[in-house]
Amino acid sequence: MPHSPPAVCLLSGGLDSATTLAIAREQGFAVHALSIRYGQRHAVELQAAQRVAQALGAQAHLVSELDLRAFGGSALTADIDVPKDRDEQAMAAGIPVTYVPARNTVFLSLALAWAETLGAQDLFIGVNAVDYSGYPDCRPEFIRAFETMAGLATKAGVEGAPLRVHTPLIDLSKADIIRRGTALGVDYGLTVSCYDPDAEGRPCGHCDSCQLRARGFAEAGLPDPALQQ
Amino acid sequence: MPHSPPAVCLLSGGLDSATTLAIAREQGFAVHALSIRYGQRHAVELQAAQRVAQALGAQAHLVSELDLRAFGGSALTADIDVPKDRDEQAMAAGIPVTYVPARNTVFLSLALAWAETLGAQDLFIGVNAVDYSGYPDCRPEFIRAFETMAGLATKAGVEGAPLRVHTPLIDLSKADIIRRGTALGVDYGLTVSCYDPDAEGRPCGHCDSCQLRARGFAEAGLPDPALQQ
Repeated sequence: MPHSPPAVCLLSGGLDSATTLAIAREQGFAVHALSIRYGQRHAVELQAAQRVAQALGAQAHLVSELDLRAFGGSALTADIDVPKDRDEQAMAAGIPVTYVPARNTVFLSLALAWAETLGAQDLFIGVNAVDYSGYPDCRPEFIRAFETMAGLATKAGVEGAPLRVHTPLIDLSKADIIRRGTALGVDYGLTVSCYDPDAEGRPCGHCDSCQLRARGFAEAGLPDPALQQ
Repeated sequence: MPHSPPAVCLLSGGLDSATTLAIAREQGFAVHALSIRYGQRHAVELQAAQRVAQALGAQAHLVSELDLRAFGGSALTADIDVPKDRDEQAMAAGIPVTYVPARNTVFLSLALAWAETLGAQDLFIGVNAVDYSGYPDCRPEFIRAFETMAGLATKAGVEGAPLRVHTPLIDLSKADIIRRGTALGVDYGLTVSCYDPDAEGRPCGHCDSCQLRARGFAEAGLPDPALQQ
């Protein structure tokens, strides 16, 4: 069996990160999946992350604890209502209140810390600049800047080993992501996308994330297995 | 009273970060001090941080919880002996085992998250490239790359407000830092620098950090008030 280089993949338990993990595996990496318990209201996604990591053959899965609620400022972690039933225009109009401050910066930094101890030069993150819903830290220029910074931050960088941040979904539509993942055997029934699920983890169907997901499955011409359970 | 813009200052409870906080205050910022409980063996430094924040007039002090021990890889958080009685040559020879993977990246990212919710454009960190003991994430090129990345990561960046990472100690020797802080009224008796203090918080006197501190006070021609208690 050929040697599989280690990689760290951020895994939220949602559709995008599950697809990203499957792509990292397809590319031959020994995937170390990292989830963050950051005080999110939708902690049910961490259970989804565990199921996904196991189903897709991650070599390891770590849940890192970090309380972002102390900083306030987001409907995902603070006591602000998650917006419902917004149309595409409203979603595109600006940064939504569900934005978590500096989230991808913080999460990629934690991934970098683990990568450094593993000796991994590869990080995977399922950001997407097409259906990105207005988050500044999902844009390609942010990712490139993080990569540059990370190369200067670490032992590996100092010793001349580049650090790569892979964003295999960045130019894909939600429908493309679903088609790609389906071809790789991802069971989307294991994933949770909703920002505001009920206590049993059932999606609300009305938040931005539920709407983007429903539109993606519709455009891909596929049923959403998470709605058929 | 003139308006004081908010700034976030990373505060470990050590000599450097205490001096940095004093400088930020002198520059007119309303300082929000951020300490991280990251599983360090020298948790006594967090008590020092609280004393320092209060003594130097920080507007707020937040301790953020983050368990870096899960990632392993450092004598500060894992079960590896802290090196003692190394000479300057040994300290300069490479990255020490007390290095915490991606620490400044992670800490600055958390500072950025708080800054974003505060509407602050200024971060302060007491890194030092002179006596930096071999840490890659204490170098000016790392700081500039972080600043660039942060400007692309945040709402403020998207809306055209630059983010500044202030490193007022970066070119100072330890003796210069001590002179500067003493002139600003910093009580170094409140600070803890040791990597391996005893249960009462008394410094070991032999780790790299204790040695650098002792040399700094000697060169500045000042007594270390922490040793006189």
